[in-house]
Order: sequence, then C-alpha cells, then structure tokens
Amino acid sequence: MAQLHCQLTQLTQLTILTKRQVFGVPGDFNLALLDHIYEVEGIRWAGNTNELNAGYAADGYSRIKRLAALVTTFGVGELSALAAVAGSYAEHVGLLHVVGVPSMSAQNKHLLLHHTLGNGDFTVFKSMSGRITEHASVITDITTAAEQIDKAIRTAYIYQRPVYLAIPANLSDVKLDADLLRQPINLELEPNPPEAEAEVIEVVAEMVLKADHPILLIDACASRHNVMKEVAEIARVTQFPVFTTPMGKGSFDEHDPRFGGVYVGSLTLPEVAKVVEHADLILSFGALLSDFNTGSFSYHYDTKNIVEFHSDSTKIRSATYPEVKMQLILDKVAKRLSALPQKKLCEVPPYPPLIKATPESPLKQEWLWTRLTSWLRKGDIIVSETGTSNFGIIQTKFPQGAVGISQVLWGSIGYSVGALVGATMAASEVDPSRRVILFVGDGSLQLTVTEISTLVRWGLKPYIFILNNDGYTIERLIRGEKATYNDVHMWKYSKLLDLFNAKDHDALQVSTTGELDDLFNDAKFASPTKIRTIELFLPQMDAPTNLIKQAKITAATNSE
Amino acid sequence: MAQLHCQLTQLTQLTILTKRQVFGVPGDFNLALLDHIYEVEGIRWAGNTNELNAGYAADGYSRIKRLAALVTTFGVGELSALAAVAGSYAEHVGLLHVVGVPSMSAQNKHLLLHHTLGNGDFTVFKSMSGRITEHASVITDITTAAEQIDKAIRTAYIYQRPVYLAIPANLSDVKLDADLLRQPINLELEPNPPEAEAEVIEVVAEMVLKADHPILLIDACASRHNVMKEVAEIARVTQFPVFTTPMGKGSFDEHDPRFGGVYVGSLTLPEVAKVVEHADLILSFGALLSDFNTGSFSYHYDTKNIVEFHSDSTKIRSATYPEVKMQLILDKVAKRLSALPQKKLCEVPPYPPLIKATPESPLKQEWLWTRLTSWLRKGDIIVSETGTSNFGIIQTKFPQGAVGISQVLWGSIGYSVGALVGATMAASEVDPSRRVILFVGDGSLQLTVTEISTLVRWGLKPYIFILNNDGYTIERLIRGEKATYNDVHMWKYSKLLDLFNAKDHDALQVSTTGELDDLFNDAKFASPTKIRTIELFLPQMDAPTNLIKQAKITAATNSE
Repeated sequence: MAQLHCQLTQLTQLTILTKRQVFGVPGDFNLALLDHIYEVEGIRWAGNTNELNAGYAADGYSRIKRLAALVTTFGVGELSALAAVAGSYAEHVGLLHVVGVPSMSAQNKHLLLHHTLGNGDFTVFKSMSGRITEHASVITDITTAAEQIDKAIRTAYIYQRPVYLAIPANLSDVKLDADLLRQPINLELEPNPPEAEAEVIEVVAEMVLKADHPILLIDACASRHNVMKEVAEIARVTQFPVFTTPMGKGSFDEHDPRFGGVYVGSLTLPEVAKVVEHADLILSFGALLSDFNTGSFSYHYDTKNIVEFHSDSTKIRSATYPEVKMQLILDKVAKRLSALPQKKLCEVPPYPPLIKATPESPLKQEWLWTRLTSWLRKGDIIVSETGTSNFGIIQTKFPQGAVGISQVLWGSIGYSVGALVGATMAASEVDPSRRVILFVGDGSLQLTVTEISTLVRWGLKPYIFILNNDGYTIERLIRGEKATYNDVHMWKYSKLLDLFNAKDHDALQVSTTGELDDLFNDAKFASPTKIRTIELFLPQMDAPTNLIKQAKITAATNSE
Repeated sequence: MAQLHCQLTQLTQLTILTKRQVFGVPGDFNLALLDHIYEVEGIRWAGNTNELNAGYAADGYSRIKRLAALVTTFGVGELSALAAVAGSYAEHVGLLHVVGVPSMSAQNKHLLLHHTLGNGDFTVFKSMSGRITEHASVITDITTAAEQIDKAIRTAYIYQRPVYLAIPANLSDVKLDADLLRQPINLELEPNPPEAEAEVIEVVAEMVLKADHPILLIDACASRHNVMKEVAEIARVTQFPVFTTPMGKGSFDEHDPRFGGVYVGSLTLPEVAKVVEHADLILSFGALLSDFNTGSFSYHYDTKNIVEFHSDSTKIRSATYPEVKMQLILDKVAKRLSALPQKKLCEVPPYPPLIKATPESPLKQEWLWTRLTSWLRKGDIIVSETGTSNFGIIQTKFPQGAVGISQVLWGSIGYSVGALVGATMAASEVDPSRRVILFVGDGSLQLTVTEISTLVRWGLKPYIFILNNDGYTIERLIRGEKATYNDVHMWKYSKLLDLFNAKDHDALQVSTTGELDDLFNDAKFASPTKIRTIELFLPQMDAPTNLIKQAKITAATNSE
C-alpha cells in the first residue's frame, strides 16, 4: 500500500535523470499534498514567488524535459496560474496542473469556505480550467485514483498539453494500492492506421521524385513532439535545404550546411524568401501557422505541393490523413526517401553577417543580434521575450545543440523570466555546464521580475540580458511612440540581484558596441560561474527591422 | 456624435470628484482604446506592473470609491487578472473589467492570432470570465453599444460585483451617438415591494419591543452597499451595543461608546462573546458568513431571533423577504425604532488594553496590534493582508472614520499590496491628508511586490509595514513549522524603494518594542510626507492567539 501522493513518482518514470522539480506555491488546501513531496527521493519543491511565475517556470522546464508538474491551491492559486496554463495549451507544452481543493465533506456541505466565491459552488474553477486544458478532473473515488493520476500524466505527455487534476485535501493522506507504481506508465502512442500510413509514405516519395526545388520547413511542434532527430535524418538523406519558422528556431542545427534560415512570410530576408517561395515541394513539420509566426499569414509559396506532418494527422495538399502522426511515420519516411536518387539542389542563402559598428557606437538592436552569434556556444539554451527580443533573435545564428525558448503564439509578456527559471532548473539536471541565457525588455521584466529570486535561492547561474529601452517599445511601434501608457517606471535594474540577496553575482551595464564587444570577448564572462544581469541601454524606438514591419501589419489588422 | 470610448466618462458620473483612475496594462488589442482615455479630462491611466496587481489595485480603489475600471488585453492579459476579478466577485466589490479583443473581422475569420489558443475559438475567455462576474458581454453592434456600456456600469455598481465587457479593436475608433452621455446613468435600485417592506419594519419593531438584550452586528456588505450611515443611525436611536465581524471591521465608529468589539465565533475574546452570545435579538447587516469571518462557522447565539438585512433580501428567523433590500429600508427602520421606548441595555465590553512590554523586548504580534491603536488617527485607511495581519488587526481599535481593507473571504495572498495602491490613489482623490497604511507579511509581499513601483511612479506616500517572520507563518501554523515549502527566500526588503527609484523615502527596520514605540511617538514619522517601508522583525512562529486557534480548526477541516 502506498499513499496517493506517491503516484507523483510516476513522473520520474518519464525521464532518465533523477532530480525532479515540482513548481508552485503552497496554500492551505495543498499543504498535506506538499508534505509528501519530500518523501519522494529526487523531487524538489521549487517554491516560486507566485503562481503565474510558477506556471511559466513549469512551461520552461517542460520545454526541455517534456513534462512539468505545477501545484497550486484552490481558487486563489489556480486562477493566478491560468494565463500560464493557457499558454502551455496554445504552445503545446506538457504540464500537469495539480490543485489542492477543499475536502469532499466541505464540498458536499457547500460550506462558505475561504478561497471560494462565497456561493457554495465548488465546480467553478475546474470548469474554467477545463476550457484551456486537454482534460480536467477531480479525484473523488480513491479506488480509481491511481488510474486517474496515470491517465492525467499520460494525457499531458502524449498530447503535450496541460491537464488539470484536483485532489481534495482529505484524500492527500489516504493510502491506496501501489501496484501501478511498479510498472511504467504506458506512454506509447496508438499506432498509425497502417494503410493510411503506407499511402502517405508512397505519395510523399512520388512527390519528392517529381520535385526540382524541394525544401524542409520546421515549426513549433517538431520540438514539442520530439521529432527533431527524425527530421534531421530526413534532411541528411535528402540533403534538401532546411528552414525553420520563428517558433521552430533551434529545432535544427543552424551550422548544418543545408540550413537556410528563418522563414516568416513577408518579414523574411529576401534571399531566404526567394528559396522558400520558389520551392515546388515543401515538407512541413509541426506547423503552427499563427500571425507572428508567419509574418501575419503572409506565406507566399509558388507551390501547392505541401506535406504537413502534425502530431495528430498528416495533410498532403488538401487531403487529411487523420491519426497519421508524425512521431510514428517520420523514420519510415526517412528510410523511404533515402532509397531515392539524389537531386541537384539549390544553394542555401548565407546567414546575415555581422553588421559593422565602431566601438563608440551606441548599442543598437541590429548589431546586437548578429554580434550575439559568435558569443553563443554549443548547447546554449536561449530564452527570448515577446517584444524586440523575439524578433531580434531570428537574426542570430544558433550554435549546434542550442535550444530556443520563446512564446510566439501566446505571447504573454513576462513569460520569459519564469521560463528562464524552469529552463535553468532543467539544464542543471541534464547538464550543469550548459548555459541558459535570457533576453528580456525592461517593460516585460517588470511583470514577473520576482522570479529571479528563485534563481538566487537555488544558486542557479543564468545570464539575464535586460534590454532597457525605457518602456513597451513593441507597443510604441504598433500605436505611435507618444502614447504615455507605454511608459514604464524606470527602475535601478542593476540592484535587482542584491535585493534578492544574491551573494556572488555581477550586475553589468552596457551602452556601446565596444563595451559589449569587450564583454563577449572576455573568457571569464563566457563561463557561467555566477548569476549575472547585463543591462543593455538601447534607444527607445530602436527595434529589429522585421518587428517594425510586423507592428505596422498588426496595427492595420486591429483596425480592420 | 462621440466616440465609443467617451462612454468611459460615464464613470465620472458615479462619484463627486474629478480625478479618476483607470487600472490595467497595455496590450496591442486595447491600445486604440487607451489612446482615448487621454482625451477624457480627469481620467488617469495607472499603468500597473502586471494585470493581477492591476486587478487588486482596482479592487482596493473600488472599496473607497464604490466602482473601479480595469483594462486588459485579450487572452494573456485578462486571464492574468482572473484571480483578482474572482476576489471582487466573492467579496462584493464593484468593478468594470474592460478587455480589448481582436477585431470582429479577425474573429469572424477565426484567424490564428497571437494571444489565442491557436484553435480559432474567440469565445473561450469571455466564457471563463462569465463564471466569476455578474455579467459578461462583448460589444458587437455599434448601434446598441452605448446602452450596453451603460448597463455594464450600472450592473457593476448596483450589485457591487465585477462585470466583463469586451471591446473589439476595430470598434475602439468608431463614432456613436453621444446622447446617453448627456444624462446620468440610472443607478437607482428597483423599489422594495411596499407590502413586504412594511411588514418587515413592523415585525422588526415588535421583536425589538420584546427583546431584553438586543445587539447590532455589522458585516462586510454594510460597507460594500454603503449603508454605514443608516446603521449608525439605528445604533444612535436604539443605543444597542454594536459589534462587527472581521470583514465588517471599520464599518462603525469604534470610539462610539456603544461599540463592543469584533465577533468571530469561538475565536472571540470571552467578554465580547458573552454579550453577543447571550443576546436575545440580533439585527445583522450585510452578513457574509464565511469560515474565517465566523471562527469556522462557530457562531453560538442563544437566540433564534435574528434579522438579516442583505443587499438583495431580508431574512427574519427562517422567513425570507425577497427583494427587500437593506439600502432602501434601513432609514425607515431607524425612524420606526426611534419611536419606541428606550430600554435598559447591557454594558459593552472594553477593547483589549495595551499589552505590557519592556523597551528591550523583541517585537511580538500581541503587543504590536494593541500598541498600534494609539498611533492610528482619524480617517486612516488600514490595509491588512491574509495571514497574521488580518487576524492581528482585530486587536487594534480603529479611530473615527477609519476604513479597514482586507480580503477575509477570498484570501488571496499578495492582494493587500495591490489594494494598497488602489486605496492610496482613491485617498489622494478624496482627501490627500488621509494616511494609508499597509500591514503585509514577507511571504505575501513577494507575490505582488512590484506594485510598490506604481506608488513611487505617482509620488504616493503610504506606510508599508513589512512583517518579516521569514516565510509563510500562517501555513506553518496550519501544517507544522518544519515544512520547508513554507520557507521563502530572504530578501533585503530595505532596498525595495531604492530599486524602484524612489527619491525621497525612508526604509526603516525595527526589532524591539522600544524602537517601535519611539517611531510611533515621533511626530515626523506620523506625517505622511514620504513613502516609507518599515520592516518589523518578528519571531518565525509568533502569531496572534486567534490565528493560532483558527489554524488548528482549518487543519482539522481539511482532513475531514
């Protein structure tokens, strides 16, 4: 016999390493549950500074480890996390949201408890979460609790979406059968329908045979559903040029000679757009065609020959093959394509070169992002914030094995700071030598800045680049620079780490290209031996060119 | 012809003063709307540090001014505010939540826009808000928009609940008929049913005539529905002893000789409980019988003679009189009771006296809350946080005209920091000489601390008492002090105001009763000439006695 909470250890079966993070904030309805976290070896309670930050941290962690657990308390706690949970839903991130709720007897008596709406209705919050999760349930029957927990974990993992699981306070200490703990949770996908799968493979092979200018296009869900290796294999056997979207950036080795850059519709660099838009066959992996991921839906292919591999289906031109999942078919596609004769392929365009600047030049975004390329190193995890950073990072060529984390579709400002915490924790489990690097604007930073305290608390050592351009520059670009609602109050950002009681730390400030150059050439700085903030002073209306274009389109769409 | 946004000026008709605050965070779907805020004289955009804080600030503002406006952006922004909005619902606070949403053409085309779930469903977020608001609607027809906006304002004000109103981005600049702006919004309540009202008045008069030990008990909704004057008049004409609940604290002059203290069921001081529980008639105003407001439902009256006046009905013993609203009947009740013969009444108990301590004694909660009594002055607004402060403040005797702000039912930690901002802004409009004073624990402060930046930004000068007891003491009391999930990372709280770039400020630290005594005797400190943090170092497990009792009850309830 084990206790209910012990099912949490099922989480440990999902990954190969022993340290595990659980994110959240305590509250009286989840305290009994939290007590048991300490009984499971290898699980650590992160203790985030608030629930929204905890949700973002869980999301960032899951993007490295494919599943995260978030624990909040009934009503006040769970609702505070909803914007993060909805983001995980939109962006396909596996998340188990465990909520400690009032005891079943309190619920049955409709008591007017604290953390309720005062109307005796205990179903409201679950029903709200139901709208933004793959599945939402409350444990009410202890005899089926183990299966229910396993199902919640399985669903979050398989679909890479959030799942809501409420545990009444009185059940947290009840013992239940431990049998299910002795076998790994079944995380296998249902097999693809064999005939449809075979048909897809053959149709794709025929299309490839006929094509003269085929390309591969990698999007968000390729990383979320972990098919990067299979896609890399297809690239290797075909030697087709490979492109990513902004949300797919980091999913393919950008130093591979076949890598051609980032495609964002009309915001794409001309030499990249030329290759993509003149392709006569596009094999697309994990597409998520949101506005900011497509230059506001401005994809302009010459071809109708598009094969879209998704996590739940495959689409070829206008035909959908339900249940033909890319996770199970791509290795077979690679094998089939490897048997085809090689073609003469078009050249891939070069990556944007370093923009020239004198050392005294004030720091500007266009230089920053191309200069960053040579400072990054193998395996870096680069987190960028909605705003100038998400657009700028497209200009940076990622090193081998780099991971990019951003939230292009959901685009909640402040996300990146929480995601940094989760990603840094995940990195410390996977390989503590990996660097984790954040780029966040001052406007976004203010929403979630307290989560930097969690980094200090656990002695984590990421790089926090603060792009201080004195306000919401992306909003100023959309709606005019005079709007004072885009002003934020100026803080002394260099004092943040000291406030949070960081012992060994650096708080650097940079205003010119020369200063940043020196920093990027400094071997000590390159080594993640301490936590650092690097405040970059940038002109208020300075922004990457692609963002300036996007802002104009967004303003027009909003007034249509 | 006026523009749609001009309907926002309807808000100015609700109060007598000219300065108005609008709370929120900009986002691209509300930018066009925000532009117009600046066109309305007397309206100021607060520019909060995140949406949850903005929601709490709006709630605090509304508790002084009876209505507040909160503006957020679609999806990411509005969901971040839900825990605050739900709190306003639970606690009966009037709030208009305006959400800038994508243009109608984008919605009709089901575009995969940023800030959506990526599934083309634009109804999800409104439907979630519908569960925690009095009414939720989206403006889609410009010809009825003016009436719809008026109705939203009316509903929020009349019911003292949040209302959700979404405005598509493309409509923010459309002109509409300004006729409705020329007449005040009808904020009159439907009259009470005359026969039922007359019956209630007579039955109450008969009960009063027969009673030997009648008392008045004032609860949360007396202030929310603004009947404090009528209740005071009933107290004056009857001379009955008057008690409040924790949520009603501040709704009656505590220096009035008839004031007898705070009743919290089994957590009540014995001399107070004796009077309340031996009463043979209780006239109750605006009752909200939640657990923390009643000592976990431990009301123990001798009498069944209870008259409950509510904002939507009256209840006498077991009989309900629907639609007999206290707002419209209490002045008539006062008049009727004034005609009755005076009775010999029981004495009211004295308020807890100052606990003795030597100057070198380490600061402790029991001393702190009774010592506070003599430092407070007329008209002070006292904001207290869920945790030790909300329980401790019951021991403090409020001065005349004081207002207490706390969130006893919803109890979201961090609420008080946002509420402080809103309350300070409201006070600065009503009477800038009024002091606003916060008591918040270090654990709760970390959730919403950035909102102190908004105070600095606008030059506001409240007192921020930080009870530094190194973690979540209330949770430690509930579930044992060893649980490390109740640890929070220690910050250098005295550096907060400098980080937020406050020019003239004090950051004080206090460890002994003597030091706090000196501070409370200092005339300069008593004057709110600058923003101040006062960090009070308290033993980790030190707490008010009533909280220690409550924590035991809560632990038992959760495991039932």
